[in-house]
Amino acid sequence: MPIDLRSDTVTTPTEKMRDAMRDAVVGDDVYGEDPTINRLEQLAAEIVGKEAALFVTSGTQGNQVAVLSHTQRGDEVILEERSHIFYYETAGLATIAGVQTRTIKGINGQMPVAEIAAAIREEDVHCPKTGLICLENTHGDSAGSILPLSYMEDVYQVSRQHQIPVHLDGARLFNAAVGLGVDPKEITKYTDTVQFCLSKGLSAPMGSILAGPKELIERARKWRKMLGGGTRQAGIIGAAGIVALEEMIDRLQEDHTHAKALAEGLALIDGIDIDAESVETNMIMFSIGQLGMTAEEFVSRLNKFGVLANPAGPNRIRFVTHREISMDDIDKTIEAVKNISASNIAKAKL
Amino acid sequence: MPIDLRSDTVTTPTEKMRDAMRDAVVGDDVYGEDPTINRLEQLAAEIVGKEAALFVTSGTQGNQVAVLSHTQRGDEVILEERSHIFYYETAGLATIAGVQTRTIKGINGQMPVAEIAAAIREEDVHCPKTGLICLENTHGDSAGSILPLSYMEDVYQVSRQHQIPVHLDGARLFNAAVGLGVDPKEITKYTDTVQFCLSKGLSAPMGSILAGPKELIERARKWRKMLGGGTRQAGIIGAAGIVALEEMIDRLQEDHTHAKALAEGLALIDGIDIDAESVETNMIMFSIGQLGMTAEEFVSRLNKFGVLANPAGPNRIRFVTHREISMDDIDKTIEAVKNISASNIAKAKL
Amino acid sequence: MPIDLRSDTVTTPTEKMRDAMRDAVVGDDVYGEDPTINRLEQLAAEIVGKEAALFVTSGTQGNQVAVLSHTQRGDEVILEERSHIFYYETAGLATIAGVQTRTIKGINGQMPVAEIAAAIREEDVHCPKTGLICLENTHGDSAGSILPLSYMEDVYQVSRQHQIPVHLDGARLFNAAVGLGVDPKEITKYTDTVQFCLSKGLSAPMGSILAGPKELIERARKWRKMLGGGTRQAGIIGAAGIVALEEMIDRLQEDHTHAKALAEGLALIDGIDIDAESVETNMIMFSIGQLGMTAEEFVSRLNKFGVLANPAGPNRIRFVTHREISMDDIDKTIEAVKNISASNIAKAKL
Amino acid sequence: MPIDLRSDTVTTPTEKMRDAMRDAVVGDDVYGEDPTINRLEQLAAEIVGKEAALFVTSGTQGNQVAVLSHTQRGDEVILEERSHIFYYETAGLATIAGVQTRTIKGINGQMPVAEIAAAIREEDVHCPKTGLICLENTHGDSAGSILPLSYMEDVYQVSRQHQIPVHLDGARLFNAAVGLGVDPKEITKYTDTVQFCLSKGLSAPMGSILAGPKELIERARKWRKMLGGGTRQAGIIGAAGIVALEEMIDRLQEDHTHAKALAEGLALIDGIDIDAESVETNMIMFSIGQLGMTAEEFVSRLNKFGVLANPAGPNRIRFVTHREISMDDIDKTIEAVKNISASNIAKAKL
Repeated sequence: MPIDLRSDTVTTPTEKMRDAMRDAVVGDDVYGEDPTINRLEQLAAEIVGKEAALFVTSGTQGNQVAVLSHTQRGDEVILEERSHIFYYETAGLATIAGVQTRTIKGINGQMPVAEIAAAIREEDVHCPKTGLICLENTHGDSAGSILPLSYMEDVYQVSRQHQIPVHLDGARLFNAAVGLGVDPKEITKYTDTVQFCLSKGLSAPMGSILAGPKELIERARKWRKMLGGGTRQAGIIGAAGIVALEEMIDRLQEDHTHAKALAEGLALIDGIDIDAESVETNMIMFSIGQLGMTAEEFVSRLNKFGVLANPAGPNRIRFVTHREISMDDIDKTIEAVKNISASNIAKAKL
Repeated sequence: MPIDLRSDTVTTPTEKMRDAMRDAVVGDDVYGEDPTINRLEQLAAEIVGKEAALFVTSGTQGNQVAVLSHTQRGDEVILEERSHIFYYETAGLATIAGVQTRTIKGINGQMPVAEIAAAIREEDVHCPKTGLICLENTHGDSAGSILPLSYMEDVYQVSRQHQIPVHLDGARLFNAAVGLGVDPKEITKYTDTVQFCLSKGLSAPMGSILAGPKELIERARKWRKMLGGGTRQAGIIGAAGIVALEEMIDRLQEDHTHAKALAEGLALIDGIDIDAESVETNMIMFSIGQLGMTAEEFVSRLNKFGVLANPAGPNRIRFVTHREISMDDIDKTIEAVKNISASNIAKAKL
Repeated sequence: MPIDLRSDTVTTPTEKMRDAMRDAVVGDDVYGEDPTINRLEQLAAEIVGKEAALFVTSGTQGNQVAVLSHTQRGDEVILEERSHIFYYETAGLATIAGVQTRTIKGINGQMPVAEIAAAIREEDVHCPKTGLICLENTHGDSAGSILPLSYMEDVYQVSRQHQIPVHLDGARLFNAAVGLGVDPKEITKYTDTVQFCLSKGLSAPMGSILAGPKELIERARKWRKMLGGGTRQAGIIGAAGIVALEEMIDRLQEDHTHAKALAEGLALIDGIDIDAESVETNMIMFSIGQLGMTAEEFVSRLNKFGVLANPAGPNRIRFVTHREISMDDIDKTIEAVKNISASNIAKAKL
Repeated sequence: MPIDLRSDTVTTPTEKMRDAMRDAVVGDDVYGEDPTINRLEQLAAEIVGKEAALFVTSGTQGNQVAVLSHTQRGDEVILEERSHIFYYETAGLATIAGVQTRTIKGINGQMPVAEIAAAIREEDVHCPKTGLICLENTHGDSAGSILPLSYMEDVYQVSRQHQIPVHLDGARLFNAAVGLGVDPKEITKYTDTVQFCLSKGLSAPMGSILAGPKELIERARKWRKMLGGGTRQAGIIGAAGIVALEEMIDRLQEDHTHAKALAEGLALIDGIDIDAESVETNMIMFSIGQLGMTAEEFVSRLNKFGVLANPAGPNRIRFVTHREISMDDIDKTIEAVKNISASNIAKAKL
């Protein structure tokens, strides 16, 4: 088995999840009759302190449904310029919801609050109405950075002043909560809706949750149907989701510890540029600029050592830790990078 | 347990499916690395004689993705006026794909071929381009009627003359094939793409297949991602899908036999109007007009006998048979309807 | 100059309109500062008894803006299956507004009221919400038929029962009013919004009006901007529009008289099938089926006599009368058709 | 009459335009039979060196139609973050075309070429396809800055490398050409399509042109119809457009001279911060930050001197010169600003 650091999306269900799925009591969820899904949705809503929750088949679906439920066609949505909703959801906001994306460059995923405020449109016949602010916590393209609670609060206050809802793409919400050492509700109390994934670090095979006000979730249910996310005996998957929420959140700390160890190990290697201090959750990104090879080449070299990774730019690499990465895997990965570095430095000296 | 004749969507996974899901070998399907999904997609493509297939989370998603893949915004799609795509998919064609629906009234789901031909638009600055013809086989709102092979062929010929693709909503494709006693490929050879469900009569907990030309399926993969249908360890569900395709198709005959028996039994009851001859697959619809009660009332009365059903109009009822309906259930249902009829006729005579 | 019976859209501005345009006092209408447009909008609103009105560049734009202002994405709109909004507006409802078209076959443009009522959707997770009912008066594809006032009222009552707005495509509203001999307000009191054209029979070079509640018209102004219908010194055109409304409505009676005379003349010709009794406004349609030629051929033969016309089907022809068609033109046209008929009948006898 | 420096959109048609409109030979442009429009479109195409051109009712409509003609739903469009298409067209790109906006911050309207290249998407199931690059020349929100020819060429080369079309929003194209002292074709040779306005500095009452390849313009004609931009005797307006193109381009130099003089005059006033060197065409923007009043207050004070202007930010003002602003108006405006400055400075010293 390779050491797969490409993403935490590769996690496979635990034995307990497999058993739970095997034995799940199910019904037709389109009729609202799947007891396992109903229990999952109730549990999920409680965990993030919202009135209601909806099972969706993916984080992308949860985000799209949220935007559909908050906005009207022709609105504008404020989001970070490397946020998943903007960057990695195949232009769904424009295509499905008919809303315009208004991007702001963030630092560690944090759009400057003053810029958010300035981006909110005034009523003008030339301009769309600002319909929604989206945040992402942790922020994937900033190597899993956590949005500080004070930042969440500041954005929330701006949103209240302008009466604009806030949606949180919390695909890795629990990594943020564990990283901050707080109850998830401390984060989600600053958002109107939140989407979080049952897959990724929590290891369910698929599925995400959209949580928010009851009335909005009712509307979301219809938008989910339109996207083809209304499924039948979904409780099979829901059973794994319940295990994910009940048993897998706390263990994310281990992934964070591994990521930090990996970053510290890499920081000592010639030609690798990484700030180990900045690692907050289960992702690290580092530059290989000084190794004189492209990210593609580096990844290809890593593969020969049995390590899988994704480029995060022309000369940047991303590593993501998860349940199936052990401390031993971390050591082996550091060793592999050392090898690549050494051979390249040697070559450079010739 | 009630006798649930509302829909075949209520079928729960078989023990064999549960075992297969328990033990499924899975990977990240967004990376194309789920071996179970890959096997399911290959198997599915073979069964309907298409180059490639794509797992989707629902029939609605398969249909929407098909339309997105065939058309461009501003096109018009020809479809039957009570087809699922038009009637029960929350206006997804307009909202997501930006295409206009051009409906034609069918008889038993068959839009007159001459009307299809006449509905195809000529080039004109006022008019949308006809981008797709959709058929539905079996046709749900016509009580599971089968489109004859000769009809499929006739529509196909019109479509070739005008170089317009044909998509088949084959949510219950295998009911049609079993009903006709033909290989499914005999049906799907008259369509460019086909969607069929792994749930419903085949009893998988969720999931459908979109099959068609390789190049189209590649595009469909991206549209599926946009709708949030790209999932991770989907092989859990895929494993049930494989069982569905390998073992559950032939047994649909039993559901058809039950439906016919049910129809014949009902035909003898005072106040029930049904043409038992017309029952072709696993659905029946009948009128209760002469009983002097609404469909809602009738359904409510049935519930007291432990039978669940859905209205199909102000004074029409739909019964759907499936794996979890036995011959004994059929008898009990007939008895229940007799009771309702008798008491109402008695009341009427007072 | 040919006798142009293709459409009343070919009418050119009158001398008085040209003078009014020459001397129009104008301002920037995007700033709301064009006095001529402001006067036109006020006058137009008064004529149809609505709170407010908006100048748009075409009937299509007025209709699209109306639908955008009444509905939300994902809604369904009920309209006649040969209505202009559905048939001749290049699928704008789906593409721009993201709403699904629900068509009903009408007789003389009148959708059966019971079918309208039956088409209104109940709340269901599978189904779009019915957001609007559209009528067309006069109805173009029914040869300019007038919707009776009692019909308008019946539809309006259904719409009130279900709290669904009604939009009237009144591109030829004044032909209806003149044909009925009533004030236009007698028609428009049964609709929430109405669009009518300043071009066509009224002879302005371009432009239409959307009228309705003040608050809706404010929203419509923004949708018009999105479509590129916000123009600057629009008062140039507006000046012609004022002449159209002040001086050109009553003379439509002449066009109706001419159309009736034309129909009566044609009814006497061998091989021409027309019900002259049914002619209500300024259009006639007739069948040439017995002449043994296609509509295209017939039109081509007519052209040689200096008469221009449009086919209205494979063997149907449409003639439209307007300000630039005199009684003498009517006589010449009848003569031309007689000639074509005679030569064809003669040929058939050989 | 106030001195109206709000925008060059306020220009009214010249006497020659009024005469030309009065006497225009017109036909039905939806049938392609308006000789004046046909001549305008041919003339317009020649001026910008494109195969074909299309009259549209506004710059917004020309831009929207261009995007519809270049892209498919789900594409991404690269454009400057304060460009008109993104900022002032009410989210039409998302709502109508279903395409996502990818904004890049420019300097004087110039998005860094390397950032454009970096923003072009690679094929990935998560990501939209880059479908179009939009430029704006002159760039309105940068006070009418001209994009240098070398910049246009650089962007064009990137676009060719990636086979992505370029659309130019040349609402004030001729201001750029006159400012650069080049034939407009020297600018438009670096774009696939160009939109330019006949109103604004050229003083036609309304209307713009979209020019480009013949085949694209044919498609654009249909998209224009969908937006309601297909009009009838459009030659009335077209006649003014011909005058605009034949006689009004060269005189833009006068507006530029006036703008420069205005900027130089303002630069000498206490509390006004403006770089007169940077004025390139007919717009200037300046900061009033040191005057201790908001832009709204400043504009209100100006109004009392008979000068109209628009804020361009919380403490920035925009002045636009045009045909109806004389050198005398420039002097009066400078005097007015001096007065406001003096009274405020005096007040500050108290």
